[in-house]
Amino acid sequence: MPRLILIRHGQSEWNLANRFTGWWDVGLTDKGIAEAQAAGRLLAVKGMLPTVAFTSYQTRAIKTLCLALEQCDRLWIPEHKDWRLNERHYGGLTGLDKQQTRDRHGDEQVHIWRRSFDTPPPPLEKGSEFDLSSDPRYAGVEVPDSESLKDTIARVLPYYREAIEPVLRQGETVIISAHGNSLRALVKHLSGISDDEITGLEIPTGQPIVYELDDDLAATDRYYLSER
Amino acid sequence: MPRLILIRHGQSEWNLANRFTGWWDVGLTDKGIAEAQAAGRLLAVKGMLPTVAFTSYQTRAIKTLCLALEQCDRLWIPEHKDWRLNERHYGGLTGLDKQQTRDRHGDEQVHIWRRSFDTPPPPLEKGSEFDLSSDPRYAGVEVPDSESLKDTIARVLPYYREAIEPVLRQGETVIISAHGNSLRALVKHLSGISDDEITGLEIPTGQPIVYELDDDLAATDRYYLSER
Repeated sequence: MPRLILIRHGQSEWNLANRFTGWWDVGLTDKGIAEAQAAGRLLAVKGMLPTVAFTSYQTRAIKTLCLALEQCDRLWIPEHKDWRLNERHYGGLTGLDKQQTRDRHGDEQVHIWRRSFDTPPPPLEKGSEFDLSSDPRYAGVEVPDSESLKDTIARVLPYYREAIEPVLRQGETVIISAHGNSLRALVKHLSGISDDEITGLEIPTGQPIVYELDDDLAATDRYYLSER
Repeated sequence: MPRLILIRHGQSEWNLANRFTGWWDVGLTDKGIAEAQAAGRLLAVKGMLPTVAFTSYQTRAIKTLCLALEQCDRLWIPEHKDWRLNERHYGGLTGLDKQQTRDRHGDEQVHIWRRSFDTPPPPLEKGSEFDLSSDPRYAGVEVPDSESLKDTIARVLPYYREAIEPVLRQGETVIISAHGNSLRALVKHLSGISDDEITGLEIPTGQPIVYELDDDLAATDRYYLSER
């Protein structure tokens, strides 16, 4: 039967620095590297070996995937990268220190930007140092200037349906290495979580989440790999 | 114009241990990791940025690719893996210490096995600890029990024509991270080197070789990146 393994990238440099990251490309910290490797060893120990991999265009997710696959001797599996698995775009908050942002705008406003389902943060200014619209990796992509979680879901799910579901239907064990919000999109879909609840669901870094799926790709079971 | 960058994986554990490796999967040494990273930094400094990547099914080549792409901020490019870019299969020599093999079989015989164009080494015994015919990564692949350089070329070139040439024709900058003998196959083809000469051509580890190609994918220039 098809199986889907979700993994959120290990701690990034800006997770550690407590800055809004979104589409900005930052590396993993040493802790993040260790988390990714531990996840891969867990996959090996549990015999939960991926056969096809998907990831975003962002270094922290791609590198998490490489490190995890290396540990379970699966570096050789096919690997597909797509911007639609990227983190939610944090707009004008990108690069800001989270505490400073709370001090400036108030806890409540920041809470809305972070946890509202359909309110995007203020747009990133054109020409900002964090503007990626002319980055070669996004050639041909209409780079958003901000995204709500709803906006993120609206690009993640079509990609899941077009690119990932056909692979799952072949009975593969698919691993997706991605980000807090792109994975929320998938968990919301697979576990049928409401708009209100999904914004508060925390997906821990480097902890593989396994979905057992039936032939119609409905989830029959969900568990953290470490729990069993 | 299309451009092709060839890179031989950095030093592997069995390069260091002086053992015949072939299709056996071994990791990189610390020196090999450093070589791969240095190659990636060189690509960045020279502005020689790959847009599509190809590699083998073997960890040392895949990891060399990941490490190099990370250094030039190109982890996000599409990456294709195929067994036909694997190292030459060393048959019954796999796992043997090169010096011990010379002591046992004589310098001349080992020289023939290593440097003959069309004489394969003795076949790997069925059920040998180095027999990969039931390894899941080679499911559906007829794993050879030994290969001459001629045999290696006979699988590398069709893959190059089917999978890599169409990408080059689109004007991409292609990087191929592979092995001494699979790269010999490509260099022989692109530089028009004779059967006799190609067996003695040494391809250094971790040194990007650049081919500038015309519209018909004929080489107009070849150089080591470090030379310019």
